[in-house]
Amino acid sequence: MKLLDFLKRERKKSASVAKERLQIIVAHQRSQRGQPDYMPMLERELLEVIRRYVQVDDDAINISLDSEDNCSVLELNVTLPRAGEGG
Amino acid sequence: MKLLDFLKRERKKSASVAKERLQIIVAHQRSQRGQPDYMPMLERELLEVIRRYVQVDDDAINISLDSEDNCSVLELNVTLPRAGEGG
Repeated sequence: MKLLDFLKRERKKSASVAKERLQIIVAHQRSQRGQPDYMPMLERELLEVIRRYVQVDDDAINISLDSEDNCSVLELNVTLPRAGEGG
Repeated sequence: MKLLDFLKRERKKSASVAKERLQIIVAHQRSQRGQPDYMPMLERELLEVIRRYVQVDDDAINISLDSEDNCSVLELNVTLPRAGEGG
């Protein structure tokens, strides 16, 4: 299954589809244990990049970090204001 | 299915699992057609952020941009040098 199809299928499950959304996923697979995990810093910098393109309030950003074995996935879900809406 | 499971399953299919990898996915769902598409600029800036954390050559970065209806997915796959390897 293509990633685009997976994301679109997941999105159909969420309540409203009409909103504009930006989803950023960072998956880091480390080959050895104990390597530095720079995800938290990467998360902060990615948010700064997004904020250069769109005005978003903190409560419009949902962040989740999931780790298993040597793989960690950082997911940022940003609900964007409709064109003409506040911000 | 959780995103972490989807990514891990996809990764098992790829040739070697032992390499260290960083995968960044940006999915942008626009609510109306004709809205500005800032993916190309976002792509460049995301690469700059990654390069602040890891030294990667251009040929270690695989970029794909997939669009359908009002949803576009930018995928950056970075194969990282093993600790101690070049870079």
